[in-house]
Amino acid sequence: MRPSARQPDQLRPLRFIPGFTSQAEGSVLAEFGETRVLCTASVEERVPPFLRGKGQGWITAEYGMLPRSTGERMQREAARGKQSGRTLEIQRLIGRSLRAAADLKQLGERSITLDCDVIQADGGTRTAAISGAWIALQIAIQGLVAHGKLQQSPLKRQIAAVSVGVYAGTPVLDLDYAEDSSADTDMNVVMTDDGGLIEIQGTAEAAPFSRSEMIAMLDLATIGIEQIIAAQRAVLTD
Amino acid sequence: MRPSARQPDQLRPLRFIPGFTSQAEGSVLAEFGETRVLCTASVEERVPPFLRGKGQGWITAEYGMLPRSTGERMQREAARGKQSGRTLEIQRLIGRSLRAAADLKQLGERSITLDCDVIQADGGTRTAAISGAWIALQIAIQGLVAHGKLQQSPLKRQIAAVSVGVYAGTPVLDLDYAEDSSADTDMNVVMTDDGGLIEIQGTAEAAPFSRSEMIAMLDLATIGIEQIIAAQRAVLTD
Amino acid sequence: MRPSARQPDQLRPLRFIPGFTSQAEGSVLAEFGETRVLCTASVEERVPPFLRGKGQGWITAEYGMLPRSTGERMQREAARGKQSGRTLEIQRLIGRSLRAAADLKQLGERSITLDCDVIQADGGTRTAAISGAWIALQIAIQGLVAHGKLQQSPLKRQIAAVSVGVYAGTPVLDLDYAEDSSADTDMNVVMTDDGGLIEIQGTAEAAPFSRSEMIAMLDLATIGIEQIIAAQRAVLTD
Amino acid sequence: MRPSARQPDQLRPLRFIPGFTSQAEGSVLAEFGETRVLCTASVEERVPPFLRGKGQGWITAEYGMLPRSTGERMQREAARGKQSGRTLEIQRLIGRSLRAAADLKQLGERSITLDCDVIQADGGTRTAAISGAWIALQIAIQGLVAHGKLQQSPLKRQIAAVSVGVYAGTPVLDLDYAEDSSADTDMNVVMTDDGGLIEIQGTAEAAPFSRSEMIAMLDLATIGIEQIIAAQRAVLTD
Amino acid sequence: MRPSARQPDQLRPLRFIPGFTSQAEGSVLAEFGETRVLCTASVEERVPPFLRGKGQGWITAEYGMLPRSTGERMQREAARGKQSGRTLEIQRLIGRSLRAAADLKQLGERSITLDCDVIQADGGTRTAAISGAWIALQIAIQGLVAHGKLQQSPLKRQIAAVSVGVYAGTPVLDLDYAEDSSADTDMNVVMTDDGGLIEIQGTAEAAPFSRSEMIAMLDLATIGIEQIIAAQRAVLTD
Amino acid sequence: MRPSARQPDQLRPLRFIPGFTSQAEGSVLAEFGETRVLCTASVEERVPPFLRGKGQGWITAEYGMLPRSTGERMQREAARGKQSGRTLEIQRLIGRSLRAAADLKQLGERSITLDCDVIQADGGTRTAAISGAWIALQIAIQGLVAHGKLQQSPLKRQIAAVSVGVYAGTPVLDLDYAEDSSADTDMNVVMTDDGGLIEIQGTAEAAPFSRSEMIAMLDLATIGIEQIIAAQRAVLTD
Repeated sequence: MRPSARQPDQLRPLRFIPGFTSQAEGSVLAEFGETRVLCTASVEERVPPFLRGKGQGWITAEYGMLPRSTGERMQREAARGKQSGRTLEIQRLIGRSLRAAADLKQLGERSITLDCDVIQADGGTRTAAISGAWIALQIAIQGLVAHGKLQQSPLKRQIAAVSVGVYAGTPVLDLDYAEDSSADTDMNVVMTDDGGLIEIQGTAEAAPFSRSEMIAMLDLATIGIEQIIAAQRAVLTD
Repeated sequence: MRPSARQPDQLRPLRFIPGFTSQAEGSVLAEFGETRVLCTASVEERVPPFLRGKGQGWITAEYGMLPRSTGERMQREAARGKQSGRTLEIQRLIGRSLRAAADLKQLGERSITLDCDVIQADGGTRTAAISGAWIALQIAIQGLVAHGKLQQSPLKRQIAAVSVGVYAGTPVLDLDYAEDSSADTDMNVVMTDDGGLIEIQGTAEAAPFSRSEMIAMLDLATIGIEQIIAAQRAVLTD
Repeated sequence: MRPSARQPDQLRPLRFIPGFTSQAEGSVLAEFGETRVLCTASVEERVPPFLRGKGQGWITAEYGMLPRSTGERMQREAARGKQSGRTLEIQRLIGRSLRAAADLKQLGERSITLDCDVIQADGGTRTAAISGAWIALQIAIQGLVAHGKLQQSPLKRQIAAVSVGVYAGTPVLDLDYAEDSSADTDMNVVMTDDGGLIEIQGTAEAAPFSRSEMIAMLDLATIGIEQIIAAQRAVLTD
Repeated sequence: MRPSARQPDQLRPLRFIPGFTSQAEGSVLAEFGETRVLCTASVEERVPPFLRGKGQGWITAEYGMLPRSTGERMQREAARGKQSGRTLEIQRLIGRSLRAAADLKQLGERSITLDCDVIQADGGTRTAAISGAWIALQIAIQGLVAHGKLQQSPLKRQIAAVSVGVYAGTPVLDLDYAEDSSADTDMNVVMTDDGGLIEIQGTAEAAPFSRSEMIAMLDLATIGIEQIIAAQRAVLTD
Repeated sequence: MRPSARQPDQLRPLRFIPGFTSQAEGSVLAEFGETRVLCTASVEERVPPFLRGKGQGWITAEYGMLPRSTGERMQREAARGKQSGRTLEIQRLIGRSLRAAADLKQLGERSITLDCDVIQADGGTRTAAISGAWIALQIAIQGLVAHGKLQQSPLKRQIAAVSVGVYAGTPVLDLDYAEDSSADTDMNVVMTDDGGLIEIQGTAEAAPFSRSEMIAMLDLATIGIEQIIAAQRAVLTD
Repeated sequence: MRPSARQPDQLRPLRFIPGFTSQAEGSVLAEFGETRVLCTASVEERVPPFLRGKGQGWITAEYGMLPRSTGERMQREAARGKQSGRTLEIQRLIGRSLRAAADLKQLGERSITLDCDVIQADGGTRTAAISGAWIALQIAIQGLVAHGKLQQSPLKRQIAAVSVGVYAGTPVLDLDYAEDSSADTDMNVVMTDDGGLIEIQGTAEAAPFSRSEMIAMLDLATIGIEQIIAAQRAVLTD
């Protein structure tokens, strides 16, 4: 029995609110249950120094949590003077996943930065961020195409992400904080709309996990990601 | 003629959304037109080192802007590794104003931190933050009273803040970004519900301002703050 | 009765010592009673990156306190690895005030940095810094004119600054540390020689202040600034 | 055909040199081909602040690369003033893996820090670090038992790690730098001696990977880890 | 011929101005020609963490240069966010030299910090700082004795310092900036009043120096330090 | 009697292992007894900004200690976020010494960085680093000559370094940690192969040292450096 009374293969209520803020080239609020992440895409007509003159673009991400997005207030990273290892790890994951969805040559010498800021946290913020950021990126790119800055979209794949885990001995989909904090195993999966794997990161929390548990978690992730992919599409075709 | 076609003494549409997030002891989204600031109050049962054992509490504030709350993306302060002088100046102003509203002895040995995070910026973020933070603080304190942790509220004054300025030669109330960025003079005023002054910070941007312009701006601020005070009360009595 | 036995409208003994150090293009020791601030102006034939190629110059300020300029030793900011919010706030105020005194286009593509270092602190260091820095700036600019680097002075206004406050219920001029640390209200005012306002920053310390107290403080500031303006001129015409 | 002419399931020459340095409680040089990582275990009779008084110990890791361990000199992280995201991610992985091998309650209120410093890098430094650090940890714990500080070993599992990937379309074991830098997919696997999974981190570099590729990589990892486990044991029983 | 027309064994005009600032327990302005260093001694009734409970005191030093103490403005170390290697090296030297002059056990569990801030630099700032700091330390300790906090002085030696070098092939005493910046060899010497060596730091700038040049420099340093020692005493007996 | 039972003028067993790592242009492990320092030379075809276009090269050094190179684990400087004063002082000394050995004009517009990383510390790490770094530099320069990038070697002098001190009243050569930590005086000497002095840094630890003790230490250093010079040559002619 899950704390939320969900079925093992049941996602939390899922909502993407495009245009949540108005200034960014792409903006989406991604809600997975009580988890809410604001994802914005910012286009800049320049690339980082290491890519100058190489005829390609860049996609990167930054991640942050508002200090009181959590049950106890966390120290503000800007005040502390540095981003935590967890933050850096997450924003590297988001950026890598989105770059895997695009053809950076076709993007041209411009950068798109995905800012993923957690307004409220209840588990699964990094996978919500990836799923929302893909929409924000897609909106920003549609704008570039609409304004004639790009002939065609450099987005070659649709991607989404979800967390899975083993909770009280049972593989479950889309862990909330209550599950996440006492799970035996925790795994984040990023996949494409045709079932290809982009990232898989599994961690034994309480005990090693078996190959069959891993397969079961992958099966759940596939179920979840299909629904997230559909929800992403629904928002974009509105 | 103001860019927004408002009258010189007209506030932007004003809205306070209490309970915008669920984990903090107090949470309000303060909207002044397109400016949106999330204000949360976090209660902690300890005080900073310099106050330990002194029998009093502490109220402080932190301020941040999401990187794409603005027309052009700003560098994330957490990534840059430090808060800007502007950020520090604003959070010092917010904290000082709220401490002026409270009796820290009556608060007891606990701290309340007001996090003011700008989701979207269109001028006047610091005054929106102060006006919203006062509500979040009030909600948090009501909770402490309701839970029996405080016998009576240490909040001795209601405060609110607004910006005023001289735009195209005319004193105006509640500047938006279009006005703020080309104003002759810019002034932020924090007042109590009975008209007392808590903070006044006026800056000549293009030309020195006269004493009579200052009086005219103060008059406008008084008009605006009365309405904000009323809106704060309306939210709290709901 | 003021701790120093001064009249409410009486400045402390005021002295500006030009040429206190010999290497800077402009150098003044500003003394307001026991407060002593060394102000130097450094001219550099370049502008910061954000102004390159825009055909204008830049004036900026930095502020520091020697660790033992105060009654108790303060931590050295260079050792601590960052400037405090108070320091940043003060140096922003000094720089903004001096820029308001100059025509940056006429300055050409060069920068002048005003370093204001507090040798001894007894209240009013920021206003002493502004008043002294204006002299150092003027000396540096006279040098540029004398050396043929500028045809005419880009300094379009003379400015000076003073602190005022409400102490023991009475508005007073030029607070020393004993007054400042127990004042009800504290206000810093920057004005031009013809009475225009450049900056006004008033803060309620113990209780809100009224509009009439604010006017009384402004009157005192006007009296004090006239005398400081005269002292600045006396130094420059020697 | 692999650049090194190895079979797809063939490890590089593997060597663990215990006692490589003499001052640490445990010290091992782990060599996977040209990759050489010095792993030391340091025992301290205290725990970090967040664990004080909780009756348990702590195991953590730090990772670094000597600036010229690589083909081109990298900037020294100490000189740059911060550890990179990659470094933080790797040392979090090492620490988490080793904690999964131990019973922290049985360790008592003491800390063991595993320092993993890369002397020479040719791919697979993080998995070499984990495999070597487990030995250093085991040596340090044997010392604690031998000196009567621990009644029995809190090490409940033997763990080792290896990288696998898809190179030129073929799943291969233990990638060197030449393979790693042009692999389609890269996966790091940490396992126990009885085949349980501790960590799995797979990343699509050039193209998404399929579930069957993932299974093939897992099979290779299992083969490799068995050999590394045997080599660890051989060193410890000498 | 020296740029200053001094004899090889001639010091610059030397002046120590005690009581240059009023708040510190000891304060001296040390002038060696155009070099001016403000040295203050601050007494605190606590010791750093590594000495707590060890029944001894601590003497340490910090060094800084005002940004425009030099011919070209230097970046402010507080703004840059760290102290340079040169600054750290100098303050370590000052602190070490002064600790060598005192019996830290007799000082009791208190700290004395010597802040040496360069108001104007013309070569030899570190040796001027040591010579001045010894006076400030002595004044502070006399105060502790006078106030009954110490029974007897823990200062067991009088120390002073001077720079020597080889300029244009000739050993010279007390280099100014013009000499220092083109000297073949540069050496700083700290000695006691009875001729004992505390520190000697010699550096070949243009060419290696011989043993006989080193002896000649030591002879000059001895001559100079005797005069500085006498000047220190003159100030203290006034 | 020395703790190691060595004669006062006896070096520890000395060994230089060239090619200890394979990627750097020069690589040597320098062993002085139990002290082991890895020195690598990295050639880069650019110079730091302050030398651009000046037609000369640059030689610099960085120094680090592995956290557990010592008896007690030290905090990792990269994790702490800055290099200590001691580290900066040492790397400045190494760089200065090696620059004194070379003609930077003849090096052309390229940089050579010497990384000196202490694998194991038993006293004398900085002098071992200098002695080893000279070999690594020489190997790197031989490579540049061999590859036709340089017509002739810009290395104009052979240098080596050793520590000397006064231990238990007797001048001794090449102090190990046991001696160093309780020596009366400690002195580091850098010399050329023809007996010229490059650097001399002597510090009184427990008591001032006399001129005759200094001469005796210099004599010992000369004896030691001759042997180190010979060992350097032996390695290079192999």
